[in-house]
Amino acid sequence: MERHFVQELDTLKTNLIKMGSLAEQAIADSIQAFLERRKDLAEEVVSHDQEINSFEILIDDQVVDLLALQQPVATDLRFILAATKINSALERIGDHAVNIAESAIQCTDLRGAKPTLDIAEMARITKEMLRQAIDGFIHNDAAIGRRVLKNDDVIDELNKKVVHNLAEAMHRSPDRIEQALEFIRVSRNLERVADLATNIAEEVIFMAEARVVKHHAAE
Amino acid sequence: MERHFVQELDTLKTNLIKMGSLAEQAIADSIQAFLERRKDLAEEVVSHDQEINSFEILIDDQVVDLLALQQPVATDLRFILAATKINSALERIGDHAVNIAESAIQCTDLRGAKPTLDIAEMARITKEMLRQAIDGFIHNDAAIGRRVLKNDDVIDELNKKVVHNLAEAMHRSPDRIEQALEFIRVSRNLERVADLATNIAEEVIFMAEARVVKHHAAE
Repeated sequence: MERHFVQELDTLKTNLIKMGSLAEQAIADSIQAFLERRKDLAEEVVSHDQEINSFEILIDDQVVDLLALQQPVATDLRFILAATKINSALERIGDHAVNIAESAIQCTDLRGAKPTLDIAEMARITKEMLRQAIDGFIHNDAAIGRRVLKNDDVIDELNKKVVHNLAEAMHRSPDRIEQALEFIRVSRNLERVADLATNIAEEVIFMAEARVVKHHAAE
Repeated sequence: MERHFVQELDTLKTNLIKMGSLAEQAIADSIQAFLERRKDLAEEVVSHDQEINSFEILIDDQVVDLLALQQPVATDLRFILAATKINSALERIGDHAVNIAESAIQCTDLRGAKPTLDIAEMARITKEMLRQAIDGFIHNDAAIGRRVLKNDDVIDELNKKVVHNLAEAMHRSPDRIEQALEFIRVSRNLERVADLATNIAEEVIFMAEARVVKHHAAE
C-alpha cells in the first residue's frame, strides 16, 4: 500500500510536469506567432489547448483519489494541495496562450507596425518566470521560486509602459487603433501569465519550506 | 470527534459565505463607483481587498487542517475540494474589483463620455451571475448553478461588442482614447468575473450532483 502510494504521488508529479511543459510551449509558441506574425503557429496553439484542459481533469481526478484512498498527511498533503493549485494555474496559462494566439491571428489580418521592443522584453521575462516556476516545482526548490517573485513587479511596470506608449501611438496614428488594442491585449495577457507563474512559485515555496521545516524537526 | 468534524465543515462553509458576500459587495461597489464616477467608493474597494485576502489564507489553513486531522471521504471530501477552488475564485474576483475600482479612479480624472449602456448591462448580468453562483453554493443547488452557465456566452458577446464600439469611438474622438482604454479594461475585467462565477457554478454542480448520486445510491 505504502509503495503504491509513492507511485501514485510520482504519477501526479509527472503529469504536472508534462502539463507544465505543454503550458510553457503554448506560451512560447503564441508569443512567437505574435512577434513573427505566424498565423499557422497561432492556430496550432488554439487547437492544442484541449490537451492542457484534459490534463487538468486527469490531475483533479488523481487528487480526489489520492485524498480519498490514501488519506495523506503532512508533507504529502501539502504537496497534493499545491498540486491542485498549480494545476488550475497551468490551465489558466493555457487560456492566456490562446488569447495571445487569437490576437496574433487578428494582427496578421491588420496592417501596421511591428510589436514594440517592450512587449518582446515582457515576453522574454514572462517565459523565464514560467520556466523557473516549473523548475522550482520539479526540484522542490524554494530559492528558484523566490527568483520568480522578484520579476512580478518588473512585468507590472513594463505592462503600464506598454499601455501608455500604445495610447500615445493611437493618438499619432488613428489608423492603427485596432492593432494597438490587440498589442495591449497581448501585454495584459502576458501580465496575467506572470501573475500565475508567481502563484506557482508561491506554492513551490510553501511546499519546499514545509519540507525544510520537517527536516529540521526530524534532526 | 464526528460532531467536531461537522462543526468544522460548518465553519468552513460560513467563512466561504462571508468571503463570497465581501467579493459580491466589492464587485457591486467597484461597478457603482465606475458608473457614477465616485472616487471615494472606488478607494474603499481598494482598501477593503485585504479583508478578502485574509479570508483566503484562513480558509486555506482550515482546509489543510480538515484534510490532515479528519481525513474526510466521499461527499465531505468533494465539498472541501470545491471549497478550495471557490476560495481562490473569490480571491481573484476581489482582485478584479480592485482593477475596476482603479479604472473608476482614472476615469474621474479624465474628461469624457459616460460609460456605455452595454457596460452597464454587462455589469448587471455579471453581478447576477456571481450572486447566483454564491446562492447555489449556499443551498447546494445544481439548478441554480446551471443558470449561471447559460450567461457566460452572453457576457463574452457583450464584451466583444463593447471593445468593437469603443474602438470606433476612438476613431471618432481621439481625445477620448485614454478614457476608452479604461472602459475596455473594465469590460475585460467584468468578463473575467463572469468566467470566475462560471467556475464557482461548475464546482457547485460537481458538489451537488455528487450528493444526489450518493442519495440515489443509498435508496
